[in-house]
Amino acid sequence: MISLNDTARILREHDNFIILTHDSPDGDTLGSAYALSGILMQLQKKSKVTVCGDMPLKYKYLADDVEDLDFTPQYTVSVDIAADSLLGALSKNYAGKIDLCIDHHGSNNLTAENIYVDSSAAATTEIIYELARILGVEINKQIADCIFTGLTTDTGCFRFSNTTARTHRVAADMIEAGCDATYINRVMFDTKSRARLEVERLAIETMEFFANRRCAIIYTTLAMVAAAGATEADLEGIASIPRQVEGVCVGVTMREQEDCSFKISVRTSDGVDASEICAVFGGGGHPGAGGCIIKGTLEDVKSKLAAAVGKILS
Amino acid sequence: MISLNDTARILREHDNFIILTHDSPDGDTLGSAYALSGILMQLQKKSKVTVCGDMPLKYKYLADDVEDLDFTPQYTVSVDIAADSLLGALSKNYAGKIDLCIDHHGSNNLTAENIYVDSSAAATTEIIYELARILGVEINKQIADCIFTGLTTDTGCFRFSNTTARTHRVAADMIEAGCDATYINRVMFDTKSRARLEVERLAIETMEFFANRRCAIIYTTLAMVAAAGATEADLEGIASIPRQVEGVCVGVTMREQEDCSFKISVRTSDGVDASEICAVFGGGGHPGAGGCIIKGTLEDVKSKLAAAVGKILS
Repeated sequence: MISLNDTARILREHDNFIILTHDSPDGDTLGSAYALSGILMQLQKKSKVTVCGDMPLKYKYLADDVEDLDFTPQYTVSVDIAADSLLGALSKNYAGKIDLCIDHHGSNNLTAENIYVDSSAAATTEIIYELARILGVEINKQIADCIFTGLTTDTGCFRFSNTTARTHRVAADMIEAGCDATYINRVMFDTKSRARLEVERLAIETMEFFANRRCAIIYTTLAMVAAAGATEADLEGIASIPRQVEGVCVGVTMREQEDCSFKISVRTSDGVDASEICAVFGGGGHPGAGGCIIKGTLEDVKSKLAAAVGKILS
Repeated sequence: MISLNDTARILREHDNFIILTHDSPDGDTLGSAYALSGILMQLQKKSKVTVCGDMPLKYKYLADDVEDLDFTPQYTVSVDIAADSLLGALSKNYAGKIDLCIDHHGSNNLTAENIYVDSSAAATTEIIYELARILGVEINKQIADCIFTGLTTDTGCFRFSNTTARTHRVAADMIEAGCDATYINRVMFDTKSRARLEVERLAIETMEFFANRRCAIIYTTLAMVAAAGATEADLEGIASIPRQVEGVCVGVTMREQEDCSFKISVRTSDGVDASEICAVFGGGGHPGAGGCIIKGTLEDVKSKLAAAVGKILS
């Protein structure tokens, strides 16, 4: 582990950077990458963001002002990448060749020459902002949009428990620097595909209650997903629905897979440990959110889950 | 209009306060009232919050530490009350007798002896926090919970366009003062009644698209609301659903009323003016949100709305 000042010094001492994002790129890895690129540009340095996998359309604005520069890459930086396995298709060219890793995951075990991790940061863009300040770079609108995007997407719009006073202060500074917070929040949190809305409606229809109504279970089948015209991306976020019901402290979502199994997501509140429930089925997770895979028929898997939850709640 | 410093001076010079909230009390009026009461307590002054109407259960924690004091009221303060009509049942005793009005609505026209309005504040609790600082009061957890509640509820969890850098900075200070932001945000934004979820599902089922899919219309009938076991409060927020669909810039929600009419809510984005659409039917509103009442049958009202929206979009 190197210090934040060392991280800044390394950036100042090198040039011709390749900046890597993690696979299935999200707002924080993309925001961090394009913010860092903007910062390096202000320091008269060349850089190029290499996105791992497809960049979702909704993040396109992050790359709006990016010029395609011609240079021989000399230094490789990863942002928000916690493990080698998250390099995806970039593994072939970059595994074991990363010069500098900047991340906020406490679990980080990426192979890299220099590693800076600050697990108290809600988003990696919080760290990128600190680097900009140390490097004396002025935050323009492009950088502000990128940093704000990381903050808001990694905290569910300042809603999750990882949000700190520092997160809000960085957001305040980005708004003052001209970021378009209203647009970004609308695109991230106030826009749903029709397929997503339809699959949501079908899933809510399946809701059943167990354990004195303290547990709610919903499911999606392959047929439902097909009927809604939905993709895997549309199913993201569905898992938060059952726990939201008043009085429910364990929300379970079952997603049928191609191989006669169900992918299970568990969300909990009021001190119930989601990872404990998932561990019964060989899965794991955090206190508030866990996952596991269970083979079997719909009714069979549902009964097993209801029984396990009932036992833990009693 | 008096100044903020005058407002603080007035609070310092008086004692035995009655603090009034507006009718159908929300997080900002309740948060402001209980925060001000906590501040006055630290100044060794007596106060009592008089809530207009029923206090929704989810806000109960705001009044947790409140002692019922016995005193003869001498000075009446209103918080977040923009007009006499919002005094509801309190009108009888308090209309025309308010000594000090503290509010953030630019449209404020409440009858009061002294009026302080700061329309740049996203929530009235932003103003209450400034008063606490001028008065030199330490922000304890009770005051911090109240101030944070006003901020987050009036900005949709820092999502709406009224959120400013100042809003985020006050939130940061409240988190440092010990407020339970995670709990408050979960109760306000991550909890739905079963009836609400059911009425939402039924409403999504009615969604139809018009004007090249740029307009979406949903409706609720009295029968649907009854079938879901829903109340008026459960219908709050339903109006945001149709506009959220990707590509939709005009979202319309029709709610059947007892008198053969429909209550219409219009939500828009991308520069389309909701108030212009509602004005066609004698209603009004803001650029992003408007409302009106239309008499007629379901199909009749829907066609009229679709035609009006189509005309404005073309």
